[in-house]
This record gives sequence, structure tokens and C-alpha cells, in this order.
Amino acid sequence: MKPTPICPPDPAPLVAFGAHPDDIEFGCGGVVVRETRAGRSAHFVVCSRGEAATHGTPAHRTAEAEKSAGLLGATVEFIELDGDARLAARPAHAITLAGILRRRRPGVVLAPSRVENQHPDHAQLGQLVCDAARLARYGGVPELRASPPHAIAHLFFYAVTPEAEPAGLARILIDVSAPEVVGAWTAAMEAHASQALTRGYVELQLTRARLNGLRAGVGHAIALFPNDTLVFDSLEQLSRGARQF
Amino acid sequence: MKPTPICPPDPAPLVAFGAHPDDIEFGCGGVVVRETRAGRSAHFVVCSRGEAATHGTPAHRTAEAEKSAGLLGATVEFIELDGDARLAARPAHAITLAGILRRRRPGVVLAPSRVENQHPDHAQLGQLVCDAARLARYGGVPELRASPPHAIAHLFFYAVTPEAEPAGLARILIDVSAPEVVGAWTAAMEAHASQALTRGYVELQLTRARLNGLRAGVGHAIALFPNDTLVFDSLEQLSRGARQF
Amino acid sequence: MKPTPICPPDPAPLVAFGAHPDDIEFGCGGVVVRETRAGRSAHFVVCSRGEAATHGTPAHRTAEAEKSAGLLGATVEFIELDGDARLAARPAHAITLAGILRRRRPGVVLAPSRVENQHPDHAQLGQLVCDAARLARYGGVPELRASPPHAIAHLFFYAVTPEAEPAGLARILIDVSAPEVVGAWTAAMEAHASQALTRGYVELQLTRARLNGLRAGVGHAIALFPNDTLVFDSLEQLSRGARQF
Amino acid sequence: MKPTPICPPDPAPLVAFGAHPDDIEFGCGGVVVRETRAGRSAHFVVCSRGEAATHGTPAHRTAEAEKSAGLLGATVEFIELDGDARLAARPAHAITLAGILRRRRPGVVLAPSRVENQHPDHAQLGQLVCDAARLARYGGVPELRASPPHAIAHLFFYAVTPEAEPAGLARILIDVSAPEVVGAWTAAMEAHASQALTRGYVELQLTRARLNGLRAGVGHAIALFPNDTLVFDSLEQLSRGARQF
Amino acid sequence: MKPTPICPPDPAPLVAFGAHPDDIEFGCGGVVVRETRAGRSAHFVVCSRGEAATHGTPAHRTAEAEKSAGLLGATVEFIELDGDARLAARPAHAITLAGILRRRRPGVVLAPSRVENQHPDHAQLGQLVCDAARLARYGGVPELRASPPHAIAHLFFYAVTPEAEPAGLARILIDVSAPEVVGAWTAAMEAHASQALTRGYVELQLTRARLNGLRAGVGHAIALFPNDTLVFDSLEQLSRGARQF
Amino acid sequence: MKPTPICPPDPAPLVAFGAHPDDIEFGCGGVVVRETRAGRSAHFVVCSRGEAATHGTPAHRTAEAEKSAGLLGATVEFIELDGDARLAARPAHAITLAGILRRRRPGVVLAPSRVENQHPDHAQLGQLVCDAARLARYGGVPELRASPPHAIAHLFFYAVTPEAEPAGLARILIDVSAPEVVGAWTAAMEAHASQALTRGYVELQLTRARLNGLRAGVGHAIALFPNDTLVFDSLEQLSRGARQF
Repeated sequence: MKPTPICPPDPAPLVAFGAHPDDIEFGCGGVVVRETRAGRSAHFVVCSRGEAATHGTPAHRTAEAEKSAGLLGATVEFIELDGDARLAARPAHAITLAGILRRRRPGVVLAPSRVENQHPDHAQLGQLVCDAARLARYGGVPELRASPPHAIAHLFFYAVTPEAEPAGLARILIDVSAPEVVGAWTAAMEAHASQALTRGYVELQLTRARLNGLRAGVGHAIALFPNDTLVFDSLEQLSRGARQF
Repeated sequence: MKPTPICPPDPAPLVAFGAHPDDIEFGCGGVVVRETRAGRSAHFVVCSRGEAATHGTPAHRTAEAEKSAGLLGATVEFIELDGDARLAARPAHAITLAGILRRRRPGVVLAPSRVENQHPDHAQLGQLVCDAARLARYGGVPELRASPPHAIAHLFFYAVTPEAEPAGLARILIDVSAPEVVGAWTAAMEAHASQALTRGYVELQLTRARLNGLRAGVGHAIALFPNDTLVFDSLEQLSRGARQF
Repeated sequence: MKPTPICPPDPAPLVAFGAHPDDIEFGCGGVVVRETRAGRSAHFVVCSRGEAATHGTPAHRTAEAEKSAGLLGATVEFIELDGDARLAARPAHAITLAGILRRRRPGVVLAPSRVENQHPDHAQLGQLVCDAARLARYGGVPELRASPPHAIAHLFFYAVTPEAEPAGLARILIDVSAPEVVGAWTAAMEAHASQALTRGYVELQLTRARLNGLRAGVGHAIALFPNDTLVFDSLEQLSRGARQF
Repeated sequence: MKPTPICPPDPAPLVAFGAHPDDIEFGCGGVVVRETRAGRSAHFVVCSRGEAATHGTPAHRTAEAEKSAGLLGATVEFIELDGDARLAARPAHAITLAGILRRRRPGVVLAPSRVENQHPDHAQLGQLVCDAARLARYGGVPELRASPPHAIAHLFFYAVTPEAEPAGLARILIDVSAPEVVGAWTAAMEAHASQALTRGYVELQLTRARLNGLRAGVGHAIALFPNDTLVFDSLEQLSRGARQF
Repeated sequence: MKPTPICPPDPAPLVAFGAHPDDIEFGCGGVVVRETRAGRSAHFVVCSRGEAATHGTPAHRTAEAEKSAGLLGATVEFIELDGDARLAARPAHAITLAGILRRRRPGVVLAPSRVENQHPDHAQLGQLVCDAARLARYGGVPELRASPPHAIAHLFFYAVTPEAEPAGLARILIDVSAPEVVGAWTAAMEAHASQALTRGYVELQLTRARLNGLRAGVGHAIALFPNDTLVFDSLEQLSRGARQF
Repeated sequence: MKPTPICPPDPAPLVAFGAHPDDIEFGCGGVVVRETRAGRSAHFVVCSRGEAATHGTPAHRTAEAEKSAGLLGATVEFIELDGDARLAARPAHAITLAGILRRRRPGVVLAPSRVENQHPDHAQLGQLVCDAARLARYGGVPELRASPPHAIAHLFFYAVTPEAEPAGLARILIDVSAPEVVGAWTAAMEAHASQALTRGYVELQLTRARLNGLRAGVGHAIALFPNDTLVFDSLEQLSRGARQF
């Protein structure tokens, strides 16, 4: 007989979407590994092979992404939409992503923000995932009939760069200070060796997380941007605010 | 024998500030009773006797406030600042409120929002409490030396009217749907009989809470506005978002 | 000899656009019936048969929309764009809608808001109507030459859900408190029986309107969001503000 | 026998507040004369003699204000608060202004905006009038008992300079194109001869009004900023939007 | 021997994009001529012949644009995207524009703003140029391999109408008061004779620039909206702020 | 013989205001030393001795401030307003600060931001300096007659903490990457030894500056927030934007 658990033993899966092989890791990899280490399953859906980037072949970048996802405790799949630097928020793509949501049935979905002034694929994908999370609930879309409708619990946007942080949405901070979490996140970013060596991406993300950590009174923290107003059963669920200074 | 609790047995106290005898009840009474029923202590600090209002004598309103606080499971004290319709956000008042925070040592503080287009006392008090929560941490203020410095965990603003909801802050929703919670909240509002009969205040608050509840997929919910970015240890703490429509 | 009228006898027609058969009714049906009862003609342009929804066949939903429009005193037409859950803001669609505006020559146009976090068809249609209202004025678009250019007086956005209310636009409230207006509006929403029974849509709209009404000191009111700055000949046209609390 | 009027014969009075003798004229004089020419009475309350300005003695400036108010069809009174460049938004001042509102019982109130980056007296007065309009309704303020409570219909903010236009409030445009209106407004501004000759204030205001007029498709228009959401009985009251370009 | 110059002798080229033959001139022509008179080369990329407009044939408008560009000291090219009133922000177009940026290698890029409530082609082009400026830096896009990657220094948005000024971006003012600058700009606008005679476009732009000039304490100034945070080596580069009133 | 300089030999002085002895150094010390090393004089006006802080006596903190100012190449004076944790934005204080501005006659003024959610003294001082910069221009204030009116060129706000960065103002970045600049700034912060050892203030500021630097493609950069729209004579003055990612 299965004993009554204090915490749910199987938190609902997490699905993260990235436009390029390294977006999820750079934007919110620390959150993912924080969750997988707590027992939540995580799956990455990557929508190009990064073939428009300056460095790295598609094959090389695929291998980097697979290694990196493994370091974070996540699985990864690649899907074909319009290709790198060519993504458009077409309704057909939203239906494709909705189909993935129905099959994976996540509780938490992570996507790049919809801020316009960033890599255009990021903003397009952010809107596509937002739309997909809605379409996954509707019963009458023919392409989606293979799986029953599914309503996610949360859509959080992540920001690959500071410029991509959405001014109009609330922000929350997730504490990723545990040494094994920061370590695995750093390793996962460095696994994208073709990208990490240029432009200081790894330092950028660790600096952002350290600044958030200083504000929150912890080591490192990553900002997420909830698409929807957060609902709580009581104030007890709200551990603390960033009131350090 | 009391079994070992899953939740911490003594959540940090809650202190709520109101400019007038009925502000706390109308603005966030449902949240207060939700917390006291879960074992959190609550204390109200009321900064006038409502002597500028159209209806109700100071004595009558004091009695209403005491009855109402009791229905919510809270204690209440009255302090003298500048009087009803005369409150100014003077630094000396902030120090006075900081002294109360040091003595009461709450985890959670509730205050009216700082939105300018509402009863002027509300906005002044919101700023005073925000400042007081900071001053309570500083070691060198002579008037505060009777109690050691204290850092609160959360300052949440409440909005007595829809107009007082701050556009520039994130909002969260607290589920107050349990029948005993809605019932006690309604009774507490009606206990302010001198105010509740005019202008439809009770219906206003219940309508606001029902609309929030419909959005959140619950019966009733009350919006609070965190002064600071919320920090979470994991996504597991975030039960759900308002994604009903 | 025709006597000089006090009010214009024939207010310019109203045209409302909806992405799905029930959007107009749920989003602003009370405003429509308020206007048709004052002698303004109203016409609905519906851009899908709701074929992606969980409940209701296209034929059933068409019948519901026709019944509902009749209850509001409006006519309704259905047009084919991309289909339910597939609408994209293509320039060709904007030209199609501009052609309808030229033929109907409305003074007032109603459209769903462009807020991104709602059913994706709503946001796409909001942008399409905004663009169409501009294109209808330009003389050189070949597809539009069958009718002379037309400039509308007003484009108002409506919000099907609270989440769709645009934060960046002004809002105005239209008093729909007359019993026959609220009654006809409620009946029109209930005429969408396939949709109204689930998720509390009718209660959602009436609760929103009651909350607006409480703020405005009337029974019920519906919020609209003007696309353009409002111009008045004198302050006499501005009957009152929502100053109830 | 007096014929039945089409418009109400006695529109509710207008009261405009200014921190300095020329603020009302420069900020919204065209609106005032538009209203007085339509039969509405207007009264100016000026809260200093401009004694901190570079040019003009208090006596001279008082005379200029009286002449200018007359050109706009308004009466004017001067009150003593803290003096020019010294105004603070003290609750006692709000009660003083509330007393004036109770005696004058206006329908429409005009005040400088609360934007912080302008002459500090303007922002302070804007907040004072906003508070006073609320206090005027409350029955229990001893200083106000000489007159019965009064609820105004509208509080509109005006902006003496472009920098003072509040970004967070809706704006409306009032058409002041009639030649006699523009003429009287210009004459009233020029009547403040001690101020008008420096820094191009008259040209500034006429340029602002012409730009608003071009946007609205009229000659000149002045922007006002309603403190509260506007409520309308029907769309017929909304003559048109600024859709010229 | 070439002497050490005080100013760089060859400022990086400027490239301005317009959706229609007259957009650049009306939106920011004064800035362009200010720059070309200081020795900077300027090139216009116009994305339609204005064939949807009420007045002017494509041939006529092409001739007007060529004459006007010459008056501003700029060269002009026309490219075919989707046609007037039909422009969509397709990724393929962004790649096309990125190719132009790589060939022209500008330091400064000007584009219409992305504000949604304006001619739809303007908003689409604003987004396309923003995306193109990013894609021009990426090494792996096959269509772009003919020229090496290029990073621009600045993307500034211009606003063809006041409605197109983006509320969410900072604004800067460029002083265009020199008589020969205002004169050339006015002549360039009037060179679009087919458009300038209707609706007061020339007066609109000069009134906007005069109002900006009054605020800045100069004759005329044009507002630009930087896409990115401005970086300065020292405060000495910041000549002054608009502090006139 | 001193050679003829390319840059103006005497840039207008800089005056920075701080509420506490270390605010200027922590908030914008790197900018100050960047300017003094380029030949601009700098003067600090500190409005308390930090007597409410947890650590450090007034005498100790005065000495720290004097040492720190010296490391930045600035002079420092202390003025008495209301005392630490007691500052109120009284008009009399604004006049006092205006008197200092008239005597010092700076081109550039630095002040803490007016954001409400920070140490209350900071927000009060930000408003006081904003008002003082205006009052310094007016000819009729008796207390100011000892010095002729003075108009500053720029008021920039600095943010002592990330929370104090004003969301509603544009931001600019000043490059402070030169090793001697970062070094002197770090030394100046560390000179406030009583404050620097707790809560990680020095790391906070260097992390903020490094993050800004990464965004701008330089080593370190400090954000300032201009109170007024920036005016430029040409685009040549705008060296570059933060377009690194």
C-alpha cells in the first residue's frame, strides 16, 4: 500500500521551450536543475539547431544541447518549425506546440519572454507557447485530438538577456544558491562550448543571478515572469520577499 | 496528544495597519481570517477613530472595530497620529509605527496602498508603513532602542477600493473561498454597521472577491500587492496561476 | 418640412467584430443593446464558427449567434478568414475587413482588445480591425475601390475577459443599468447555451459589470477602451466620473 | 415666457485652482472661456500672489490675474496658504480647499497635475485639490460644518507645461477652435504681461493647442486629464476621437 | 601628413528606412539633413512606392522621393517587399534588410516606431529593422554570406505622427534649429507635393518640432527614440537637458 | 605653457547630494571619479551624519566621508536638515538646497532617485533636489537673493540600490571601466568601513556595474536617470548604445 505522502511524490512535469539549443540553459537552467534535483521531471523542446549562429555546426550544437540537458537532469527533443532566425508565430506552430503540451501534460511551462527587442526567434516563441498553452485546453482542434485537452498550472517566461526581461509583468525570484545547483547550471552553460566562449554569456548569467541573489539575501537567484496572476491558498506559501537593502 | 505538525506550528504574527476603524476589514479582512484560522496571530493597528466620517461616533466606531477584529480572530489597538482626514506621512509617525513593528515582530505586515487617488489618509499610511518597515531594521534611532531591530518577511498592500489597486506593483490572489472564511469576513464587515449600510461597501468587497475568484477558478479571492519581489525556494511553492479564462 | 431635430435622428451605424460566435455578446453585448434601443443600427461580423471550441457544432453555434444578435437588435454575418484558433493578422485580412467598413460605413466600431495574453484569435482580430479602420480611408487600395473611402468616428476595444483589458489605454464606462438592457444582454449571453453553461461565463460578465456599476454609482456598466484620444466640444458632454468611493 | 431649453440652462459651476496668478490661464484658459461662453459660471482660486517669480510685484500680478479672469468670464479670489514656492500638501490646506468646494458647489473642478517634475507648488496643489474633493463629501470634519457635504462630478487636471502632462492618466481633448475662444484665451494669457514676455509662454501654449488641434482635426484643442474613469450614458455622448493621421 | 582631426572626419554612414516614399522626410528629415551637412553620408531605403495612397501615382511618388532625398543630401533606393498597405514582418524580409545593413555598414539606423496604432506598414517595418539589425551580426545565415557580419552602433526610431511616439522608450531631442536645416527639411517635405497639400502634414511636423524646440530652449528639435540604452564615456558628452519650463 | 585644449578646459562643476555619508559613493562614486579625473570639479553635500544607522558614530562617519570624497577627487560639506531617518521634503529645505546650487553654480547635479520603496530619506532628498534645481532659477525668493539665479544643465538621479532605479525614467550608462576609475571607486566605497563590511554593499555595487558593463560591452558602467529629456546637437554626440546581446 502506498503511504500518504507529505509532499506530492511526483510533482507535475516541467516542459521548457527554447528557440536555440542553448536558450533554456542560459535563460533558466538553474531553475531547471533546482527542480529536477527535487524530483520533478523536465523536458526541453528546442525549435532549431542554431544553424544561423556564428559558431557551431548543427550537429555540434545538437550534441552540446544533449550533454547540457543531461547535466540538468532533463531530456531534450528537437522540433522543426521555420529554422533558426526564421521563426514566425504562425497559428500552425502554436497548434504543434499545443500537441506537445497535451502529450507531455506538464504542470509548469517555461518559455522565452515576448519582449520585442531581443533575438526575434525568442519573442516569436514566447508568443507561440503562450498561445499553445491556451489551445491545449480547447476540445475542437482536429490536429490535437490524439491526446485529451490539458490545462497547465503555470506559464513562466524566462529572459535570455537583461534586455528580454518584460517590464509589464511581475517578477519572482527562484533561489538557486545550493552549490550543486549553481555548479550543475554552470557546467550546463559551459557545455555549450561553441557559444560560451564568446561574448561572456556564462559570466553574464552568473552576474545576473548573483545580483538577484544579493537582493534576495541568498547566493544566486534567477528571475521568472509569471504569465498569470499567482494564486495562493495562504500567506504561509510565501516564504519571503527580496528586502535585503 | 497533539501530533507533529507538517506546517510550522507558529507562523510569524501578522500585523495590519488601518487609517480608519473599518479599513482593514473592508480591504483584506478575508485574508486575515484565513490566516488566523490557520493558526497565525493577527493584530490590528488603527490610526484614527473615524471621527471625520459622515456616520458613527468615535465611541461607536471603536466598539464596531473591536467586535469586528474579534470576528476575524485578531486583536486591535488604536493609536493617535494626526486624526481622521488629517494624517500626514511625517517621519516621526514612521518612527512610531516602527516601534510597534519592533514590539510586535511580525512576519507579515498589511497596509493600505500608496495610490494617491483615494482617501488621503490611506495613501499617507501606506507610505508610513513602508518607511516604518525599513526603519525598524536600523540600529541607531534613539526612540526605537527599547526593542531590538526587526526585519519583517513581507509587506503587502491592500486596496480598500478598486481605485486604490496599484498599477505599478504585481498582484497576487489569496483564496478565501472556504465558507467559514467568507462568512466570518462578511460578518466582520457588517459589524461596521455605521458604515456598511451606506454606499454598498459590503457588496463592493464581495463583488471584487467574487470576480477575483472567478478568474482564479475558486469561490472568492482577495488581491494583495507585495511591496518587494517574491522569493521562492522552488516552483513547488507556487500552487497555481489564475488561468481560468 | 422636416423639423429641426434635437438629437440626430439616425446615429451612425455600429459595427462590432468578433473572432468567435459569442465574443461580442460576452465582451460588450450590453453596450450594443443600449445603443440599438436608442435607435442606432448594429451589425456583427463574426470571423469563425467557433469550430475549435470544446462544445457546440459550427451549425449550432451559428444558430446561437443569430438568435443572440436578434435579442440585441443587431444583424450578424459570418466571414471566413483562417478559421477558429488559426487567425493571423495578415494584411490581406485587414483589407477584407476594410472593405466591410467601407460598405457598412459605421460611426462606431467595436473590436476585441489587442492584449496578447488571451485567446490568440482575439488579439489578432483586434489588430486587424485597428489596421482596417485605417486602410478604409486610403484611396489607392485596388480591392477597396468598390466603395468610397470611409473614416470611422470611433474604434473602441472590448475585453472578453478581465485579463484582456488593456493596461495602456484609457477606459470609459458605459452605463447599461436599465432593466431592459441588462435583461436583453443576459438573455443574449444565455442564448449561447453551448458555451454559457461551462466555466461561468455569464456570471463572469455580470460580476464585472456590477463591479463597474458600483464604482460608477449605477447598477451595471461595461468598460470600453478607446483606441484614440477622445475629443469633446465642451465639458457639458462629460456627464460624470466614477467617483463613488 | 422662458422657452424650454435644449441644453440645461445652468450648467453646474466650474472652479479652477491655480498655485500662481497665471497658472490657470496658461494651463487651461481656453477651456474656461469655452465654458463661460456656453453659460457656465467659472471661479478661480489662486493660492499665491506669485511673489517668488523673477518678474512682477504681488500687486501687479494680482491686477493682471483680475483682468485676465475677466477676459475669460471668470471671477477670481486669492487665498493664503504657504506662499509662492513654499506650498506643502498639508491636510489643513486640503480642508481649507474642501471648504471652498462646499461653498462654491461646482460640478467641474480644474487643478494642476500632480506630476513631480514641474514647479513644486503645482504638484502640491494638484494633490491638495484631489484630497479636498474627497473631504468635501465627508460629514464629520468640524471645520467644514458651515456648508453641507458636496460631491463634485469631475476633477480634471491641467498641465501648465508639456512636462506636467501625467503619463499615467487618460487624456481628453477639448476643442477650443472658435475664433472668439482662441482670441479671448490669447488675450487672457497676454494680460499676464509680466510673465508673458519672457520664455515664450504664450507661444508654448498656442503651439501645444495647435498640435492637439491638428491631431483632432480642428483648429486648437486643450488636453485635460480626468482624475476618474469617465462614465457615459451612451456612445452618442462621445462625439469623436482624434483620428486625423 | 594628415593632421590629427578634432572630430572624426568620416562619421559612420546613416541608413534610414521608410515604408512609404515620404515617411523618412516627415518623420525625421530634419535630423538627416543636420547630419549630412556635418559630413555624414545618408542613404534611404524605401519599401513601397506609396501605391495605396489616395494621391500620387507610383512614378510620381518615386520622383518626389528622389528629389526630396537630394534636398536632404541623401541617396535613396526602393525595394520590393509586400507592397504598400500590405507589409508583414516576415523573417525573410528581416533577412533582406539585414543584407542591406551588411552592405551599407551604417553606424546609425533610423526606422519608424513599432507602435501598433499607426499605419500598419510603419509598425511592421519598425519591427523588421529591429530584427534585421540583430541578424546582420550573426554569422550563419546563408543569404547574408555575401558580406561580413556588421554591428550597428545605434538604432533610433522616429515617429511619423504624434500617435506613433513610443510611450515605453526613452526619448532624445536633436536640435535642428539652424535656418539652413529647417529650410532644407521644409523643402524636402514640400517636395512630396502629392501628399503635403492634404491634411496639413508639413504644418504638423513643424508644429511638433517647434514644440520640442520650445521645451529644449532652441528653435526646432526632433524627437528620436533609442532602441537601446545609451552609453557615454563621460558626462561631458551630454550637452544639456530640456529644462526650459 | 599650457597647450590649447581640444575639450573645454573647465567643465562646469558637479554637485552631488547624499542623504547619508556613503550614499553618493555607493550610488554613483564611479561617475564622480570619472569626471574629476577629466578635470571637472566635484562637491558633495551630505544631509546627515548617518546617526540612525546600526554601525558607526557620527564622528566616525564624517571622517569616512571626508576620506572617501578625497579618494574621488571631491570636496564635501555636511548640512543639517532634519537628521538621519527624519528627512521630510519641506519647501524650506528645497530653498536651502537652492541656495547651495546658486553658490556652487554646477552644470551637473546628482541626487538620489525619488523612488518610494527605498530608505525614506533618499526619496525625500531626490524630490528636494529636483525642486531646488527649479527654485534656483526664480528671482523672487528672498532667502536666495545673496546669489544670482542659476539654471543647471542636468539633473541626474542615481540609485543606491537596484530597487531605487526609477522605472518611469530613461536610463543612460556611464562607462567607468578604466582601471584607475574602478579602483578609486572601490577604495572610496571601502573607505566607509563602518558600512561596507555588512550586507555586501561593495559587492552589490560592483556586481551592478559589471552587469551594466556586460550589457554595454565594456568593463563596468553605472546607470544614471536623467530628470529631463536629453538634447543633442547632433547624433555624433551619441557614441553608442548597449547592444551587446
